[in-house]
Amino acid sequence: MKRTKIVDVLKSTDFGKDVCVKGWVRTHRSSKAVDFIALNDGSTINNVQIVVNPSQFDEEMLKQITTGACICATGILVESLGAGQSSEIQAKTLEIYGLCDNTYPMQKKGQSFEVMRKNAHLRLRTNTFGAVMRIRHNMAIAIHQYFHEHGFFYFHTPLITASDCEGAGQMFQVTTKNLYDLKKDENGSIIYDDDFFGKQTSLTVSGQLEGELGATALGAIYTFGPTFRAENSNTPRHLAEFWMIEPEVAFIDLNDLMDLEEDFIKYCVRWALENCKDDLAFLNKMIDKTLIERLEGILKDSFVRLPYTKGIEILEEAVKNGKKFEFPVSWGMDLASEHERFLVEEHFKKPVIMTDYPRDIKAFYMKQNNDSEERRTVQGTDVLFPQIGEIIGGSVREESYDKLMAEIERRQIPMKDMWWYLDTRRYGSCPHGGFGLGFERLILFVTGMQNIRDVIPFPRTPKTADF
Amino acid sequence: MKRTKIVDVLKSTDFGKDVCVKGWVRTHRSSKAVDFIALNDGSTINNVQIVVNPSQFDEEMLKQITTGACICATGILVESLGAGQSSEIQAKTLEIYGLCDNTYPMQKKGQSFEVMRKNAHLRLRTNTFGAVMRIRHNMAIAIHQYFHEHGFFYFHTPLITASDCEGAGQMFQVTTKNLYDLKKDENGSIIYDDDFFGKQTSLTVSGQLEGELGATALGAIYTFGPTFRAENSNTPRHLAEFWMIEPEVAFIDLNDLMDLEEDFIKYCVRWALENCKDDLAFLNKMIDKTLIERLEGILKDSFVRLPYTKGIEILEEAVKNGKKFEFPVSWGMDLASEHERFLVEEHFKKPVIMTDYPRDIKAFYMKQNNDSEERRTVQGTDVLFPQIGEIIGGSVREESYDKLMAEIERRQIPMKDMWWYLDTRRYGSCPHGGFGLGFERLILFVTGMQNIRDVIPFPRTPKTADF
Repeated sequence: MKRTKIVDVLKSTDFGKDVCVKGWVRTHRSSKAVDFIALNDGSTINNVQIVVNPSQFDEEMLKQITTGACICATGILVESLGAGQSSEIQAKTLEIYGLCDNTYPMQKKGQSFEVMRKNAHLRLRTNTFGAVMRIRHNMAIAIHQYFHEHGFFYFHTPLITASDCEGAGQMFQVTTKNLYDLKKDENGSIIYDDDFFGKQTSLTVSGQLEGELGATALGAIYTFGPTFRAENSNTPRHLAEFWMIEPEVAFIDLNDLMDLEEDFIKYCVRWALENCKDDLAFLNKMIDKTLIERLEGILKDSFVRLPYTKGIEILEEAVKNGKKFEFPVSWGMDLASEHERFLVEEHFKKPVIMTDYPRDIKAFYMKQNNDSEERRTVQGTDVLFPQIGEIIGGSVREESYDKLMAEIERRQIPMKDMWWYLDTRRYGSCPHGGFGLGFERLILFVTGMQNIRDVIPFPRTPKTADF
Repeated sequence: MKRTKIVDVLKSTDFGKDVCVKGWVRTHRSSKAVDFIALNDGSTINNVQIVVNPSQFDEEMLKQITTGACICATGILVESLGAGQSSEIQAKTLEIYGLCDNTYPMQKKGQSFEVMRKNAHLRLRTNTFGAVMRIRHNMAIAIHQYFHEHGFFYFHTPLITASDCEGAGQMFQVTTKNLYDLKKDENGSIIYDDDFFGKQTSLTVSGQLEGELGATALGAIYTFGPTFRAENSNTPRHLAEFWMIEPEVAFIDLNDLMDLEEDFIKYCVRWALENCKDDLAFLNKMIDKTLIERLEGILKDSFVRLPYTKGIEILEEAVKNGKKFEFPVSWGMDLASEHERFLVEEHFKKPVIMTDYPRDIKAFYMKQNNDSEERRTVQGTDVLFPQIGEIIGGSVREESYDKLMAEIERRQIPMKDMWWYLDTRRYGSCPHGGFGLGFERLILFVTGMQNIRDVIPFPRTPKTADF
């Protein structure tokens, strides 16, 4: 008999018909008159209840149907009289595919996230991680759908790179060299001629620069791929390997870019609310009671659009009125999390797109405004969210070859391997811009989870590369 | 005035209305009476023609509108009298965003792919690479769409891994160690305690084993991410960094798996034929005159399903009848490309799904059939395509802990870091299977391109990691 997924069984009203389900046992309650097996197959957070008349089945077999065991059950779909479920299955046949003894690490309910991380291969079978992973899937689909509908092309920028121009973070070296026999030149420098790529290579920290090559040819592209930072940051917000989305668009200005950022992020949040109802309801109940309210809040209003200089004025005014910050406020500084949260959560009470940052706290490629030399700003556009802080970092790019080169020289950035990047400004340069979104930051926001290690299947962090 | 993408301008019948387009000049033909500028913005392979009355514009400015320059043009959309285009724009204003002098490497038409590869950052602006990249995008969208519609969850398996169990290929080492100061123990072995992850790590060669963890929790997952092979293969079919799709499904048997493979690949090919008409027409004309016919051929018939043993019989029969192969045919051997092509292109003249391979030419995790010990086969299922050979490699997995362990021991595979993989068979094991598809192999097939370096933006191959 053909298997039906539990998500479809629970939607079905074909009462009286036979169905076949397969999945993992969540609980098995036994009594003399009746057994109840709650079965889950990962297609939904909800279990289907299988009602078993124990007199019709082998007693020893029934005893083996323990939490975690994998079974196949057929039976009649009937309307349920129990609360919280609309249908259940009256078992006709039961078959055990895989036993699960009492050493199963996921047996107990309510284990700590710490313990679950050590069993990341099995935590996927729990309610919480099932919900998170289904939402993660939906957010990825929403992202592809959004960009496809809007005429962006998915563009695969390389992971292994010979350039570290952006200086966005520390890098992992990638090599096939025999570390026991490292060739060196007369100055004692390691020779990379015989390395796989004939030079020293690393894992990318951002696909943006290559993304600009795509955008200045195809018009609008987005990347969605793994990105790496070899920073020794053991925090609930950092991963050494994470996924990043980086759209890049030709012929866009600051206003268009802010429109794109806002429209995009609202699309993702709306998708979650519309397509992940059961999983969100579960997380709202078990993880974060304000989750759904916070997601709905994002959709309600337009985001505030706030130039950095104006933001500083608001913060200075607040200090004057008695607000205490750990870090002092002054023009030119990089905002600390406390400042961002004050603006978003206390002052405006909605998301803020901050723009026009001081040049010296932003990357070299951002488009320069025509303001004074000592207070020169650039067209950065960061989206600040409640609780999470910066969720998107973007900018219009400097398209003038001369201005870009002047900035590169001012910062003494080594560009010898970056001739190809400069070619975008040398040949048919065009106004363009884009932004980056850390995928796991989005998932944190949409699930209400607190630790970034719990929103990716197998987190890579300092001293951890299990599974 | 708001810009319209050229793909939309060319569909519009709003003749007489003003439009604004922005893009890169493909050609600029001048005469006394009229100038024609062919403009492309990457949104489509087709250019829009801008008709310019030179008397209305500055002569020096018009001279600067050379091939490769980036411009903004506004004007009236009119029905075109020229062949091959339905509309054109009578220019009212022209603005140059970026000049392009005669050192522009993409100036000449018909350059060799070799030269284009050296300018991979600019080849994206050519017709051929624009077409390939738009098709590449569409294939990625088709893949996500297919799996989403079929209830699979997109599952991100890690790129950095501490295990190399499958032995699918040579690996790149990933490290933050200071290669000038490598700590060693008393036996002279490098100590990895102080490496980023506290042990030796590499880039993954396959996400399958982790994918099985996802499938045995969420029911059905797919990966779609970068994969790495440090093989020194300088061929038109190998990349050191490529993208792979690996679906994995619980509760699937050999027949279901073959159905999935065939349905999936036909969906992708159909998507290309329906959504990439202009780009395919271009490639069919310029690159491979049998391309569209070959794609349509895939959809026409059911794929042949052929057990390996039967395949060997057909090949032996062919040899008896005079067919000459370079490599002799015998049961137990791995089919060479010539054998696969004979079966697909000459014998059956349609795609073949080959199944039930000898155990010793396949991976350890494949489900064993109950045949004789000396001719033991496993439930592998490879899809063989015309021209391209193996496009999909899949199998049902061995779900029995005992049989899997016996095979691991028979092969003496070191499993010390693989306890988590074995746990899938230890706790609630279930029948499952899946397959892998090299994304660039699919793009080769769908575009008719001959070299895998020409279907990915920035190829990584031995001695090459530019851009």
